[in-house]
Parts: sequence; structure tokens; C-alpha cells
Amino acid sequence: MKASGDIEVLIALMAKLPGLGPRSARRAALHLIKKRTLLLNPLADAIFAVAERVRECLICGNIGLSDRCDICTASERANGQICVVEDVADLWAMERATVFKGRYHVLGGFLSALDGIGSEDLKIPGLLQRVADEGVNEVILALNATVDGQTTAHYIADRLEGAACSVTSLAQGVPIGGELDYLDDGTISAALNARKPV
Amino acid sequence: MKASGDIEVLIALMAKLPGLGPRSARRAALHLIKKRTLLLNPLADAIFAVAERVRECLICGNIGLSDRCDICTASERANGQICVVEDVADLWAMERATVFKGRYHVLGGFLSALDGIGSEDLKIPGLLQRVADEGVNEVILALNATVDGQTTAHYIADRLEGAACSVTSLAQGVPIGGELDYLDDGTISAALNARKPV
Repeated sequence: MKASGDIEVLIALMAKLPGLGPRSARRAALHLIKKRTLLLNPLADAIFAVAERVRECLICGNIGLSDRCDICTASERANGQICVVEDVADLWAMERATVFKGRYHVLGGFLSALDGIGSEDLKIPGLLQRVADEGVNEVILALNATVDGQTTAHYIADRLEGAACSVTSLAQGVPIGGELDYLDDGTISAALNARKPV
Repeated sequence: MKASGDIEVLIALMAKLPGLGPRSARRAALHLIKKRTLLLNPLADAIFAVAERVRECLICGNIGLSDRCDICTASERANGQICVVEDVADLWAMERATVFKGRYHVLGGFLSALDGIGSEDLKIPGLLQRVADEGVNEVILALNATVDGQTTAHYIADRLEGAACSVTSLAQGVPIGGELDYLDDGTISAALNARKPV
């Protein structure tokens, strides 16, 4: 590469984005430079606006434009249910399904002995506090069906034992549109074990 | 998606980058917000620096920090050869090969009757001017081996007929590391036609 300093810095930073490697970061940077008024300047403004204004909700860990996010301050949402997710991306995925009308709690990761991530590194204490304070009657654990996700789910369920709320988790089974032939054994056993009368 | 305004704008802009779709743009935007000091702020600075300072070279169409790019002003590069490329990305690819020591000329695209791109939309007049003015003795057409690329190459060769310089193009054949079994018929015929004594 024979790009001048500023461009090299831009490429190096863009290569750190998930989904972009060195080669696609180069392409993206050149595309930005070509589309200066259409893309480069608006993107600079958008990144500055986000850097300036976006912050984490002090209650649930979602991101928004103030210390309390839109979902925590929405009066039309039910107070009794908290849906626990790993990440803001998962919160958005739940919201796209438009079926959950309660509040959220974003953990910010999963427990992981290997990476030295304990419950204090996640927002688990905050969750326990909210359950005690807010009169919550159901905690829905919407965590990934991976080892780390399920470990974290079990840990939270343990910590909530004795609290005056039920703890549920997302159902496991065949995804909508799924073909049995392409599903792994674990999913098929889970779906069989949780079978329902038609 | 339930992202607040600023974040949605950022995601929409990032989704316009080559290699990023709506889903990966979302991931990238969240990644940026998470890595605020490590990535978001430096990226904002880098984009502003590029927007402020990077401009197109008035001679060859390369990008750089002034009206004459590093390659056009480099005294150690040969004046007699001009390598014609479509794009700055192609110029960088040539430079990574570190074998060409002359100057470049960036066309900014290919001729395309379908898209209404004629020679005046590309930097072909500038190239003809340079050939006349700079005492060039070889024009190397390093253009893609695609229909548009080769059409453009033939057009330029036609326009340069009668000029006091030779016009060459990159050799076509088996790429280094290439396996015959995986090569298309066109490449194999080109390589066979251009066979050399060992």
C-alpha cells in the first residue's frame, strides 16, 4: 500500500470493525473518499454526534441519548417483566420481533471463567437490585443458547431463587422455516423433549 | 430495530460502505459505541482529517495530501513511463508489487456505453496531454482483464496511435500459484497463445 498518512490511519481503524478486514477496509476507505459529499462528510458528522450524545442507560444498560433510555422511560411498557439480554444487539433483535412489551436489562457479556469475567463485571448486581426494588414478577432470560449463555442463565436463576418473581427462559426447538435435515442433534433432542400436543 | 436517531443515521451510513450490509453495519456501529475511546473517537478524527486534507492529484488522479501526489513529485521515479490504471485501489495494488518505478495515471473508471461513460468522463484527455507534454516513451495499460477494461485499453491504444511512445499492456496468463484445473478457458487459451520458450 502506498497511501498517505491520514488515509492509512483511516484504513487501519476501519479494519478493526467487525466484518471488515484489511482489504475491505481499503475498499471502504477509497469509497468514502470518492463519495465525499454523499458519504464521507455525513459519516464524520454522524460519528461525532454518536460520540457526543450516545450514552448508556443507568438503569438497564441499553444505549440512548440520555441517562435513562427510551424503553426505561416509556410509560406504555409493562413494569412487571424484565427481559435479560447479553447485548444491545440482542435487545434490538427482541424489539424487532415486537412481541415483548416489558423492560430490558442488558448484561454486557456472559460469565466466563476462561476470560476472568465474573458477575461483578456484568450488570448482574444491578439486575438483582431492580428485581428487589421494582416489584418485578417475571424475569425472562433471553440469552444465547451457547455454553456461556446458558451458564450465565443458570447463575442468574440461582441468584434469583427466593425472590418473589418467576424466572423463565426462551423456548428451545426448531426455528421457524427450519428443516430437520439441517438441524443439529442438540436442537432436535431439545425440540423432542419439549414437544407439545397439537 | 429500536435505535435512537443518531445511531440509526450512523448505521444507515455505514450500511452504504462496500462490504457492509444492514446487519453488519449494525454490528459495526455497536462495536464503535462499545469501544468509544479505542475506536469511535480515533475514527471520528481520522475521517475528519481525511475529509479536510485528502485531495486528488491534478496531474495523475491519485489521492494525496496536496495538489500533486507523492508519486508525481518523487524525483527518484522514472519520467518516461506512465502506468494507466482504473482506480486508486489498482494503483495501490501496483505499488504493493513494488516493481514499477515510473508514474501513474488514474482514469477514474472505464468507458461504458451502457452507463453513458465516455472518454471525457474519464481522465483520458489528461493522459493524451501528458503523453504529448512529458516526453513519455511507454504507456503501460494496467487495466482489468474484463470487457470494460479491455474496451478502454483498446480505445486508449487507438487514441495514442501516432504518438511517439509505445503502448503496452499487462501480460495475460496463469497467475502465480494458479492451478490449471481451476482456471477458466479464456485464461488457459491466453496463456497458451502467449507461450514462451523455457
